[in-house]
Amino acid sequence: MKYNEKTISTEIKYEGSVIKVRRDEVDLCNGKTASRDIVEHSGGVCIVAQKDNGKIIMVKQFRKPFDEEIWEIPAGKLNYGEDHYSCGLRELEEETGYKAGKFIYLSGTYPTPGYCNEITHIYYATDLIQGETRPDEDEFLDIAEFTEEEILDMIVSGKIKDAKTIAGILLVKEFKQRGLI
Amino acid sequence: MKYNEKTISTEIKYEGSVIKVRRDEVDLCNGKTASRDIVEHSGGVCIVAQKDNGKIIMVKQFRKPFDEEIWEIPAGKLNYGEDHYSCGLRELEEETGYKAGKFIYLSGTYPTPGYCNEITHIYYATDLIQGETRPDEDEFLDIAEFTEEEILDMIVSGKIKDAKTIAGILLVKEFKQRGLI
Repeated sequence: MKYNEKTISTEIKYEGSVIKVRRDEVDLCNGKTASRDIVEHSGGVCIVAQKDNGKIIMVKQFRKPFDEEIWEIPAGKLNYGEDHYSCGLRELEEETGYKAGKFIYLSGTYPTPGYCNEITHIYYATDLIQGETRPDEDEFLDIAEFTEEEILDMIVSGKIKDAKTIAGILLVKEFKQRGLI
Repeated sequence: MKYNEKTISTEIKYEGSVIKVRRDEVDLCNGKTASRDIVEHSGGVCIVAQKDNGKIIMVKQFRKPFDEEIWEIPAGKLNYGEDHYSCGLRELEEETGYKAGKFIYLSGTYPTPGYCNEITHIYYATDLIQGETRPDEDEFLDIAEFTEEEILDMIVSGKIKDAKTIAGILLVKEFKQRGLI
């Protein structure tokens, strides 16, 4: 079955600095109509950055929706008109100080396709060259390095909850097992 | 550093049927204040459901934010007051018709911790007993079964983009490799 929901009307309901919300009225396959609330987001990039010694760089960051500091791989959102490759290199350098010699695309993932159009692009960065961190104003990060095995333990034990980090780390393991990276 | 953003004020900006949006004014660590847009969501559950023959059940579903049908593991959102274990069993049965004999918790993941408080709980279901599907009204699903290897190929090639599916399938592989499931 090829299914589609044709938009009858659309209305912006909220405009914030990071997200917008619109409400679409749509035609369903069965002749009925329905409403769809959609969060609009510019998209993001996250990076599994692995040093020559095998360690992976992680950041601990306060996340207001959970009132909690959580461990994540470096990440950031796309600026207007920015491509995700440039965004990823910029965010990695701003947050961790590292420039990536190799920057390999793994996947463009949909974190919450039910209600949000964000795509999170996942990269694997190696051949890292250390520089200075330049975090965004109002961005407070702790940076640390862990082995792959330590991070996998944190994922399996539930200490890492961030979905892009779980997907990114496990994707790197899968790509490596297949000899793709 | 123990970092926190204390809420000074909060205001509901939009109330939809699946999401709400609130805007918090917060105190930063550096004496300044900032605004945080937060999408409120009741939380969700997704299920890696594996039959005795090894096949995993997938659903193809139209997702309006991308105007696209995508492959996902069965999933749904928590009803008000519902626990995620019951929700997972219910959604699996509604979407696929299968009752799970074993239903093992893998992880509570944060899909987009930067701006949304959704937690997606991931379960592994086995000992499946076939029954009748009872999809939600206005929910149109194609159901299919794939081997683990086929799904891993779809993840690596980018055919599967849904983050909870990528995390769920790769978590099951990791848990199995460790002899945990």
